[in-house]
Amino acid sequence: MSIFLGSNLKITVFGESHGPAVGVAIDGLPPGLPVQEDEIALAMARRAPGQNLYSTPRMEKDEVNILSGVYQGKTTGTPLCAMIANTNVRRQDYGNGSLLRPGHADYTGMVRYQGFHDPSGGGHFSGRLTAPLVFAGVLAAQWLNRRNIVVGAHAAMIGHVADSSFDPCNLDTAALAGLKKKEIPVLDDGAAEYMKAAILEAGENEDSVGGIIECAAYGLPAGWGSPMFAGVENVIASLLFAIPAVKGVEFGAGFAMAEMRGSEANDPFILQEDKIVTATNHNGGVNGGITNGMPLILRAAVKPTPSIGQSQKTVDMAAHTEKMLSISGRHDPCIVLRAVPVVEAAVALALMDIGMEGAKA
Amino acid sequence: MSIFLGSNLKITVFGESHGPAVGVAIDGLPPGLPVQEDEIALAMARRAPGQNLYSTPRMEKDEVNILSGVYQGKTTGTPLCAMIANTNVRRQDYGNGSLLRPGHADYTGMVRYQGFHDPSGGGHFSGRLTAPLVFAGVLAAQWLNRRNIVVGAHAAMIGHVADSSFDPCNLDTAALAGLKKKEIPVLDDGAAEYMKAAILEAGENEDSVGGIIECAAYGLPAGWGSPMFAGVENVIASLLFAIPAVKGVEFGAGFAMAEMRGSEANDPFILQEDKIVTATNHNGGVNGGITNGMPLILRAAVKPTPSIGQSQKTVDMAAHTEKMLSISGRHDPCIVLRAVPVVEAAVALALMDIGMEGAKA
Amino acid sequence: MSIFLGSNLKITVFGESHGPAVGVAIDGLPPGLPVQEDEIALAMARRAPGQNLYSTPRMEKDEVNILSGVYQGKTTGTPLCAMIANTNVRRQDYGNGSLLRPGHADYTGMVRYQGFHDPSGGGHFSGRLTAPLVFAGVLAAQWLNRRNIVVGAHAAMIGHVADSSFDPCNLDTAALAGLKKKEIPVLDDGAAEYMKAAILEAGENEDSVGGIIECAAYGLPAGWGSPMFAGVENVIASLLFAIPAVKGVEFGAGFAMAEMRGSEANDPFILQEDKIVTATNHNGGVNGGITNGMPLILRAAVKPTPSIGQSQKTVDMAAHTEKMLSISGRHDPCIVLRAVPVVEAAVALALMDIGMEGAKA
Amino acid sequence: MSIFLGSNLKITVFGESHGPAVGVAIDGLPPGLPVQEDEIALAMARRAPGQNLYSTPRMEKDEVNILSGVYQGKTTGTPLCAMIANTNVRRQDYGNGSLLRPGHADYTGMVRYQGFHDPSGGGHFSGRLTAPLVFAGVLAAQWLNRRNIVVGAHAAMIGHVADSSFDPCNLDTAALAGLKKKEIPVLDDGAAEYMKAAILEAGENEDSVGGIIECAAYGLPAGWGSPMFAGVENVIASLLFAIPAVKGVEFGAGFAMAEMRGSEANDPFILQEDKIVTATNHNGGVNGGITNGMPLILRAAVKPTPSIGQSQKTVDMAAHTEKMLSISGRHDPCIVLRAVPVVEAAVALALMDIGMEGAKA
Repeated sequence: MSIFLGSNLKITVFGESHGPAVGVAIDGLPPGLPVQEDEIALAMARRAPGQNLYSTPRMEKDEVNILSGVYQGKTTGTPLCAMIANTNVRRQDYGNGSLLRPGHADYTGMVRYQGFHDPSGGGHFSGRLTAPLVFAGVLAAQWLNRRNIVVGAHAAMIGHVADSSFDPCNLDTAALAGLKKKEIPVLDDGAAEYMKAAILEAGENEDSVGGIIECAAYGLPAGWGSPMFAGVENVIASLLFAIPAVKGVEFGAGFAMAEMRGSEANDPFILQEDKIVTATNHNGGVNGGITNGMPLILRAAVKPTPSIGQSQKTVDMAAHTEKMLSISGRHDPCIVLRAVPVVEAAVALALMDIGMEGAKA
Repeated sequence: MSIFLGSNLKITVFGESHGPAVGVAIDGLPPGLPVQEDEIALAMARRAPGQNLYSTPRMEKDEVNILSGVYQGKTTGTPLCAMIANTNVRRQDYGNGSLLRPGHADYTGMVRYQGFHDPSGGGHFSGRLTAPLVFAGVLAAQWLNRRNIVVGAHAAMIGHVADSSFDPCNLDTAALAGLKKKEIPVLDDGAAEYMKAAILEAGENEDSVGGIIECAAYGLPAGWGSPMFAGVENVIASLLFAIPAVKGVEFGAGFAMAEMRGSEANDPFILQEDKIVTATNHNGGVNGGITNGMPLILRAAVKPTPSIGQSQKTVDMAAHTEKMLSISGRHDPCIVLRAVPVVEAAVALALMDIGMEGAKA
Repeated sequence: MSIFLGSNLKITVFGESHGPAVGVAIDGLPPGLPVQEDEIALAMARRAPGQNLYSTPRMEKDEVNILSGVYQGKTTGTPLCAMIANTNVRRQDYGNGSLLRPGHADYTGMVRYQGFHDPSGGGHFSGRLTAPLVFAGVLAAQWLNRRNIVVGAHAAMIGHVADSSFDPCNLDTAALAGLKKKEIPVLDDGAAEYMKAAILEAGENEDSVGGIIECAAYGLPAGWGSPMFAGVENVIASLLFAIPAVKGVEFGAGFAMAEMRGSEANDPFILQEDKIVTATNHNGGVNGGITNGMPLILRAAVKPTPSIGQSQKTVDMAAHTEKMLSISGRHDPCIVLRAVPVVEAAVALALMDIGMEGAKA
Repeated sequence: MSIFLGSNLKITVFGESHGPAVGVAIDGLPPGLPVQEDEIALAMARRAPGQNLYSTPRMEKDEVNILSGVYQGKTTGTPLCAMIANTNVRRQDYGNGSLLRPGHADYTGMVRYQGFHDPSGGGHFSGRLTAPLVFAGVLAAQWLNRRNIVVGAHAAMIGHVADSSFDPCNLDTAALAGLKKKEIPVLDDGAAEYMKAAILEAGENEDSVGGIIECAAYGLPAGWGSPMFAGVENVIASLLFAIPAVKGVEFGAGFAMAEMRGSEANDPFILQEDKIVTATNHNGGVNGGITNGMPLILRAAVKPTPSIGQSQKTVDMAAHTEKMLSISGRHDPCIVLRAVPVVEAAVALALMDIGMEGAKA
């Protein structure tokens, strides 16, 4: 299943890397939501390949073609389908999927789909499938913005280079907003240069680097979410793990909480100008699956790009022999930067789905 | 929503800590699955409070009463509802929820449910709700065992005390099976004593400690799961975050992959007696959301028990003033040990839901 | 699957006729909804067997035992589970399901569940499973009443005896409300005597009669529902066909519309005191799957009780031979009367699920 | 919601009558299903407008453009998205939706979507949305055919002209297969001429006629379906009511069962060459929501086309006054014929969704 079955939004992401198009069909959008072409173009550009030296040279305009669900610039409330044509397809770069690329889904896809999947460029498993997700995320961000909720993310780490972290209690909201305009979305611009160097160095060695993306949302009211299976953390995690390469998700202090004492990890409630807030925010704005009004803070681990030029040991399924593989196609030495807007999109969609509750007893 | 809407299983976990009962209604179970009372009793006992010094002294027999869906000791295929009566209820130990317990869902629950929730002992947010999850997990484990798949977990860390880790390529399956019989489920028994000491010390200080649970599944075939939103990682994460106190989830090397190179993180495919396996297992047995036949490895971060005896700063919502709170009720200085079978249950349920696919083209 | 997966409500109906209990687990209820014991008792009594000569002599108190989700007389917003114990169980009345009862699900249930189902008294296929549905319907009716929406139904036909029909444009709302208090819920009391006679006559002949139930809802605002698959008609039909014995559902003029001209079937819009209404109501209050503010009108065909005393030809699956069967257990010569509150419950639940939309763009 | 959330298939039908395209995104298709262009073209042609005198003169080629999910002529198992461009758009034929067309969803759509819907030609409520449904149905029919299951339908009644009915016990399977090739799909060709005359006569009077479609499926094994909410009848009905103009659905003898005795309505089980069958088939092949191996028989009532040339009373919402309306655009005097393949598609999709169960205990 490639469908997100949220409580309110049902999102089918479709397409293959080298098929006619990738796209998304969304049901459950409210009517009257403005579809802002400039915001869409900006977000698509942030994710798109070929922007700079630090990403894959495959150029795709990633123009979004809306087929339905929008009338006079606003959502109709009926299903919105949008497609992004694949214009720069080079099937010859890729094999038939028989020579398994380590770290990719060539093998698992072939087994899962009994050999009927499209193997070119990863097919439906390609990172290209995150393009429609980013488009959908713009609609969600728009819905959230109307409620004064802003979602932003930065590259918290690339390789061994760390950026500063968000202040979980006193988010610098201007800095958060500014991240969308940066070539290297970091809080500490000094880190950017080291990150660039790390990426270039990995690329020169026909290798790749991974990283960590930290994401925050501020302006969230208390009371969004649910206990058990449909909590804020559950829904966000189920969307984040849809991003190829994400291998870990943590909220608030996350894994670091494992080594804290209760007296340290508990966030004391205090009154701030008559509003209930917490003095610390180790829980990342979520208690029992429900927002507590503090900034939502989460981190996603992104593994290094599996496509590398270095020679790797692998298996040729057709020949049933071990072989060496050197991937010569176009690929990113680091996908963390391009994944930043994807993480934002996933979080925005999760929050919109959770926030779309309104029935009263 | 407190319902898990899997592709195949629909699981409603119901109940309040101090209401008549907690329980679970499961639809989508296959017919003919044996319901083994001894396995259920064992699993319930592992999670139950009051087992030893290291957990809460609240004694609950946690007897499972099956109301439907089982006939002559086997599932019928129609909905199975099971309840566990709350026999040891002491409402006076808890306030009306107005004096917010830090780290708990008192505040978020009150806002979310507009004051209509049952505040006693955390109500529906109580860790007691994991009891029916463990029961459901036994059924899933049984279904998996028939396919020679075994799920097991251990306390990888408690406070600052670390256990050994699973060997992700060559799981010691005997050791995995043995974990269920240990008082302190660890791979390295030497760690157990330090963990006990850490828990007791925290309890004596009216404080608590957290930890990390590592879970593995072996015997999984390649090809289970899906790309995008219904992958193995997505489904498992969406179930794990239903466990109160879980604040982070990672697969394979997880966050450590962020600092790896692609050449290191990629797991090379090799042939092993004609079978395709990987030489390393940094991806934790999952590529593109789909199992690759290697052991599934994951880790969950468990925050320290928020209920502590130490005096904490908080707010009384009714009085709208800041107050100090010292929680005198029954509580665990460490819930990691009791959470081990809950993590196993969540993972088993996720794997069963994913594995129940059988239609052909 | 025995779960109703509405857009907002998720309802699992569980239980077997001669198992420990039947019941229902509901997730998605809003918090703060009063749970009125008198309304529940009234509705359960209307459906319960053994009320009078016209129904089965199996006596069941049908006492609803709420296990969760209600606190201080109101819904908490977390899952509500309620059970009704089976107190009057006589397994000896029923065989092992091998001697197939014509018109029942003995055969299909055995095939579907590979012989693992509980055959006693129809098991999960028993009409007894409508008891928890009626309970759930009371909660929905309560939610609708707060919005001044009333659902009511009557026996429009029993055997060949017809009651009057609702006036689809000018519903007699007092008459609608009065139906719940009648022994024989009809609009035209004169029809009641003929219906009683028809039922008694069928019973004396060890036979049974069917009928038609007409149901209406007034007070619905315009704009509830959706086009395509989640329209008012779709959702109501998917719930009505859950009632054993319902074999047909029609809205407004229904099948009679097939013989109308467009000029006759179209309901002209007119202004009535500044409000847009329709001059006729052949569409039963629904256009394009969405309510138009006129009364919702629908009819459900109920087949005659399949359990009859007369000797019937059938097959013994175990012996694999044809046999004659005369059902001597307790059964109704007519289930239409008891099905009236069940139809109301199904319609109320569908309308609540549809009406629980509130998010804005 | 315009999404069908089946147990296995998730189908989003998108598009507006005069927008860029209509289409469908389907998740959950099995891999390896052949996508036969000739079958698709045939089915699309049967539904397409402008085929003959008896339908709307709007010409649409209805060419299906598959964007994803198909590789080398077969389904991949990942989401299939297909679009049909709207090539013959004439927005000037339609108003802004303010002048409400009786019998249409102009009013309910405007209220439901707060005025943000696309009103041109009915927008998302247009019968044109059945084109992607027919496409999807071809895939389902293909899947069923591989299991020797065939679905076929005929115009059982148009206006007052009745065709013969299917023999529910001994379906003429050759006749069923032949229906797809007939201009007027009837069993009794003599009825066709009277139907044509009735349609032409209605058209000449600027009026329209409705009818009844009878559909059958043979080759179904016993044991498909579920009790309660996901039974064969529930799922089929929830899809049939997605077809604009369907106002009633009945299975087997349907409403006629209401007047039968139990001794007549019960279908006796008999042995036929060692196979368990029923001697009659009043239940239409379904007992307790589950197929019994007999032919599935159902009927759908189709109301007369609401678009008629005759002058009708209505309301102009903008002007808030009553007005007369004469619809001069392109419309069918009878949509029953074009709805026949749509009913087949809906039934085939429902049966495929139900049949895609394969997990074992």
